Amino acid sequence: MLEIHVAVAKVAHHGSGESGDTLETVERPGGGFSFVLVDGQGTGRGAKTLSNLVATRAISLLKDGARDGAVARAVHDYLYTYRMGQAAATLNILSVDFQTGRILVSRNNPAPFFVIRPQGLRIYNEPSTPIGLNPMVKPIISELPVEPYTYVVIFTDGLLRAGERFGADLELVNHLSAWPAAEGRNPEELTEELLQRAVDLDQGEPSDDMSVVTLAVLPAEQPGTARRLYTSVPYEGPARPAPRPDDEE
Amino acid sequence: MLEIHVAVAKVAHHGSGESGDTLETVERPGGGFSFVLVDGQGTGRGAKTLSNLVATRAISLLKDGARDGAVARAVHDYLYTYRMGQAAATLNILSVDFQTGRILVSRNNPAPFFVIRPQGLRIYNEPSTPIGLNPMVKPIISELPVEPYTYVVIFTDGLLRAGERFGADLELVNHLSAWPAAEGRNPEELTEELLQRAVDLDQGEPSDDMSVVTLAVLPAEQPGTARRLYTSVPYEGPARPAPRPDDEE
Repeated sequence: MLEIHVAVAKVAHHGSGESGDTLETVERPGGGFSFVLVDGQGTGRGAKTLSNLVATRAISLLKDGARDGAVARAVHDYLYTYRMGQAAATLNILSVDFQTGRILVSRNNPAPFFVIRPQGLRIYNEPSTPIGLNPMVKPIISELPVEPYTYVVIFTDGLLRAGERFGADLELVNHLSAWPAAEGRNPEELTEELLQRAVDLDQGEPSDDMSVVTLAVLPAEQPGTARRLYTSVPYEGPARPAPRPDDEE
Repeated sequence: MLEIHVAVAKVAHHGSGESGDTLETVERPGGGFSFVLVDGQGTGRGAKTLSNLVATRAISLLKDGARDGAVARAVHDYLYTYRMGQAAATLNILSVDFQTGRILVSRNNPAPFFVIRPQGLRIYNEPSTPIGLNPMVKPIISELPVEPYTYVVIFTDGLLRAGERFGADLELVNHLSAWPAAEGRNPEELTEELLQRAVDLDQGEPSDDMSVVTLAVLPAEQPGTARRLYTSVPYEGPARPAPRPDDEE
């Protein structure tokens, strides 16, 4: 019996309260789940609106049972049509499909993703373009078996560019190569380490939105069929005054 | 600075691999997030399909920026129209709206929900009907301020009925009254305690699907704007053989 764990952390670039990246997760109607990670071009409210639109469309299609490759294509066509080739976004879909027992990574993102197994690290960096700018864009789709001690790491490009301003480099490959996959550590540890390193390289002031998603397939610690989800979100107070309590709901 | 934490746990009723309850969470496009919890009438695959359809519709509308009350009404109308008043589901929407700084609980569910604060427990049990069976059903909507040491507990009715077969009772009110809200403990603790108690009362074999969602508003442990999400899902192997690798994607 295995258990699949996913740990996500997201920070906004310094000076902006809100990350322009959008991450959503849904249950797949046929069994399993998907994570959708979108980085909208630009920063601030415009980027957030864009990434929200793209992520919304993607999760609606996934919830309708559409296959991941069709979702990425349809979402591209939607963005390309309605923004007339003027707006770009990166799109990653990370799915575990319980019907086929496969992990699927759909990638419209120049940034690579990584898979760590006890036998070593593999970089998936086949050339891939963001959605929205050119007609008929397709995702690069990679399939992996659901096997214990497999870690899949995806992220938005803000992570790769951490430290650039200061001539420093995240040395992601070195760092991930050193991850002891066979020990079956919690993916939260890996996600937090990566993000912390990136924020440190930017001297505590991230120059871009950064999101990291780490999936791990691990032996189940205890028998049982409970699904669990935990989220924490910083809260800075209302953006505008509360409406009158007698407002129509 | 505050932080909002949400802990969810879901178990399937004994003998069914899959819970008929569906829980989804989305970021609200105006800021904040929503949790949608649906319990479809019946058990097994039929209940799961129903709860998936209802939850899908709800999250699509929420992602479009629709207000919670309109979402609950529209989702009811959808179910009532297309299942011709023959299918029922309970629907809870738990939202934190960062624009207004309010917690909103929208309830189409005979089961109550609970709010624990340092000054005591409050039960929200105004009569409320499931969606799908009668025309023009409306949700009961409750608004709460985002204040530290507030816990909101919602669940599906499987939890309330735990132990019924054996003449035992969860004694939910006693249990929740004893929760030390002012200590600011992690809501995961409360969620796991409730679920564990319920499963124990059913002697390890839950007689129904059970889902518990606990939201807590707590002082932020460290400054920073990182959002975090963690999920774990049991995996029992593929439901059917993998497709040929050259299948069109």
